[in-house]
Amino acid sequence: MSRTVYLNGQYLPEEEAKVSIFDRGFVMGDAVYEVTCVLEGKLLEFEGHMARLQRSLKELQMHCDISRDEWLEIHRKLVELNGLENGGVYLQISRGNAGDRDFHFPKAGTPPTVVLYTQSKADLRNDPHAETGITVVSVPDLRWHRRDIKTVQLLWASIAKMTAEQQGKDDAWFVEDGFVTEGSSNNCYIVKNGEVITRPLSNDILHGITRGSLLKMMAERQLKLVERPFTIAEAQQADEAFYTSASSFVMPIVEVDGVKLGSGKPGPVAKRLREIYIEEALKAAI
Amino acid sequence: MSRTVYLNGQYLPEEEAKVSIFDRGFVMGDAVYEVTCVLEGKLLEFEGHMARLQRSLKELQMHCDISRDEWLEIHRKLVELNGLENGGVYLQISRGNAGDRDFHFPKAGTPPTVVLYTQSKADLRNDPHAETGITVVSVPDLRWHRRDIKTVQLLWASIAKMTAEQQGKDDAWFVEDGFVTEGSSNNCYIVKNGEVITRPLSNDILHGITRGSLLKMMAERQLKLVERPFTIAEAQQADEAFYTSASSFVMPIVEVDGVKLGSGKPGPVAKRLREIYIEEALKAAI
Repeated sequence: MSRTVYLNGQYLPEEEAKVSIFDRGFVMGDAVYEVTCVLEGKLLEFEGHMARLQRSLKELQMHCDISRDEWLEIHRKLVELNGLENGGVYLQISRGNAGDRDFHFPKAGTPPTVVLYTQSKADLRNDPHAETGITVVSVPDLRWHRRDIKTVQLLWASIAKMTAEQQGKDDAWFVEDGFVTEGSSNNCYIVKNGEVITRPLSNDILHGITRGSLLKMMAERQLKLVERPFTIAEAQQADEAFYTSASSFVMPIVEVDGVKLGSGKPGPVAKRLREIYIEEALKAAI
Repeated sequence: MSRTVYLNGQYLPEEEAKVSIFDRGFVMGDAVYEVTCVLEGKLLEFEGHMARLQRSLKELQMHCDISRDEWLEIHRKLVELNGLENGGVYLQISRGNAGDRDFHFPKAGTPPTVVLYTQSKADLRNDPHAETGITVVSVPDLRWHRRDIKTVQLLWASIAKMTAEQQGKDDAWFVEDGFVTEGSSNNCYIVKNGEVITRPLSNDILHGITRGSLLKMMAERQLKLVERPFTIAEAQQADEAFYTSASSFVMPIVEVDGVKLGSGKPGPVAKRLREIYIEEALKAAI
């Protein structure tokens, strides 16, 4: 069945939703995005995604005058029109169509291109990967250096996922200057002697919404957290590892570059944090 | 007047040329491009651009079965249909529309999206900037690390051009680890004591077609060339500087980060190389 999607104020069948070949998103990677998780028909972490969206726009001097309430209305309408129970709402804003290709930004007042659509994932909560844990391989981090801005310049992340797949593994971890930065589309953590270790925020990594919330939940429960970079070798000797992302919550990792971690099964910390996160996020869902 | 553009086998009015919101070029920066210069109605460096296009596709495991002769036919037809005398033909190939957004590549056989269009620039040959020389400012090189592949992930290059413009300057030079990598859309050179200095090819910079041809022309004329990285301070103390690109040929640079080079006017080496390049490239144009 064809989805109904949102494009610049209109709700359209997905096949009819098209953008100009001059759109800045198409010719220059000049677009930002967010993915808001939908669980049991409700939006998770909506305020967090909207806040990060505004930050991305601001960092890139991009303008879009849709209000928080209007965003919420569009998200909810798409969830309703498409009968979405579990999955996510993808939102993308490009700097619009300047009528031709030019490295310079389009003239002031050029409307941005706004696209939203739903993606269904039935087994989001009971993802079998969360039971078995996933395997990762390391890949050099060749991405641009403003990873804190959530742009659509995702080619290297895409290649990293394909590299993992071609090696029969589930996902990739980026490594730069000897340290893990983050996963191909998620933030990474290791657990050693009951301590959770994750890289601190900077322009080197995305400021994950799930990461932010999880850290708050951990602090409330007095769980030990250390924010520092870690190496692949350290990860291989860790008791556990996991990643966080909007659509996977907390996902246990059981193998790094061919080395099994601990028992080779999802560890108790990752499992517990996954439960805590889903419960709390769902409680706050709107 | 509306241009006629090429999109996936069709020649269309530019307003009608649209791509899906799921196109990999729009959602993931997963597209490569070339710009072939048109001078006096003829294509410059066509073979060079086609060779680099094939290399970009290969490096990204992207497929497009349009032959060299078919590309030539499309380029020529667009030049003719749009009565283009001077300017360029822009060509972009994305990994196509997989019907939804996914970090993984679309399944084999998914057709790429192919777009070509003309851009007119009447004063290409007698560009007034070549008479006055241009000014540049340095900007940290935050781009991804496969700059040898000509992808549409151009956001940082676009921001660099805007940074220059906001400072009242013409263009930006990227600096990484203390050395100039290249210009925002061109290769850079300095001239000291009759010697031309430019950064050697690697994944750090685009393998400019104009650069390759100019170096050959210089060798044929026994002009001195040294391929090594240089700093901003060295550039500021150089006798001259210039850049090369497909649509600007050889462009003299007269100021770097507020410091005038030599006399503050285009130098003799840059002027001579510009003449040589245009003459030779036009002789070989098809």
